[in-house]
Amino acid sequence: MTRSRIAARRELAKDEGSARYVARRKALIEAAATVFAAQGYSAAGLDEIARLADIDRASLYYYVGSKKELFYEVVGEYIDKNTQMAEEILAKDASAREKLEELIVSLVISYEKHYPSLFVFIQEDLAKMAESRSGAGKRLQMTMLRFNEITVEIIEQGMRSGEFRSDTPANVAAFAVIGMTNWTHRWFTPKGELSGEQIGRAFAKIACDGLTP
Amino acid sequence: MTRSRIAARRELAKDEGSARYVARRKALIEAAATVFAAQGYSAAGLDEIARLADIDRASLYYYVGSKKELFYEVVGEYIDKNTQMAEEILAKDASAREKLEELIVSLVISYEKHYPSLFVFIQEDLAKMAESRSGAGKRLQMTMLRFNEITVEIIEQGMRSGEFRSDTPANVAAFAVIGMTNWTHRWFTPKGELSGEQIGRAFAKIACDGLTP
Repeated sequence: MTRSRIAARRELAKDEGSARYVARRKALIEAAATVFAAQGYSAAGLDEIARLADIDRASLYYYVGSKKELFYEVVGEYIDKNTQMAEEILAKDASAREKLEELIVSLVISYEKHYPSLFVFIQEDLAKMAESRSGAGKRLQMTMLRFNEITVEIIEQGMRSGEFRSDTPANVAAFAVIGMTNWTHRWFTPKGELSGEQIGRAFAKIACDGLTP
Repeated sequence: MTRSRIAARRELAKDEGSARYVARRKALIEAAATVFAAQGYSAAGLDEIARLADIDRASLYYYVGSKKELFYEVVGEYIDKNTQMAEEILAKDASAREKLEELIVSLVISYEKHYPSLFVFIQEDLAKMAESRSGAGKRLQMTMLRFNEITVEIIEQGMRSGEFRSDTPANVAAFAVIGMTNWTHRWFTPKGELSGEQIGRAFAKIACDGLTP
């Protein structure tokens, strides 16, 4: 069977969405998250991912088109949800401090909940991946940039209301917040002494107090 | 000529240290920093590095043993200097706040000064590289861990003196500081509006105010 016929069958199976197909595709995506986390995106092999998901290597392409597609499947949904959550926090009728705290805490909790998928995504540096101009990569990059913008907007709200200092550019303050949060990908594990929520609250207090005049 | 004879010649040339040899080896290391920065460690090719340094590909191994050796050459010296600087800051007769501020500002300035070499190092995640158990990788990893320890020790000094809050574990606070600082590898360029020193001072104020009771 040629590659294009496999692709056609894959699209058909996805549309039909039989329970077995969906379950095996899901197992494959979960295996991919584990292997990407252990080895990084570049070194991860489809052979090992298929083995871990207990799927025959030859039928792998029946479930997924490429390693890159697997990666975007792993993280795309989480990223979308996080940015949607950030939009909702931004739109709330609350102080900038409350919003910034909720944003930070929710983000670290999401890293914990989806461990290690989102850490893989952070480590691999989407900006570089999106240079390949794949549609999915570009869209994910835009979603991430929107998250950063929302962080800036919340800090600007606090500057306007006088809750936060205005002597630091809002984007530099936002990078401080995003930096401390995203750096968890180098050290946080759900098996540590502190929960994601506890770490998020500690970061939120440093960030909010650190921006208070 | 066999690979081992080239290695022997390389070691001899390094020991003799002729001006021309040293200059060409330096050009190679600088070219490597540029290519690593643009493409990441994994994708960087020795062919391109040699071409950029204007060194014949065939004589490359006369100057350097491997891509990994080039990488450690690029960053090892800077990492050593930064940790030495941190030791000196820790040993000063100064408040914890003054020390933490100087540590943060000096680190961002060093990222700017050696741009982009240290950002390459941060992106590539030394912890994973050191798993290969190469002696140089292990030593660099220890130097980095010592830098983190010093950050913790400065924060602990501030907690003992009452300058800093004690309700956040010192290592979590240190990861917040290191996170905001190291995340610059994703966005800071020396061509931006703010200098490394300005960004370092903005981060130091957020971190120090954020830890003040």
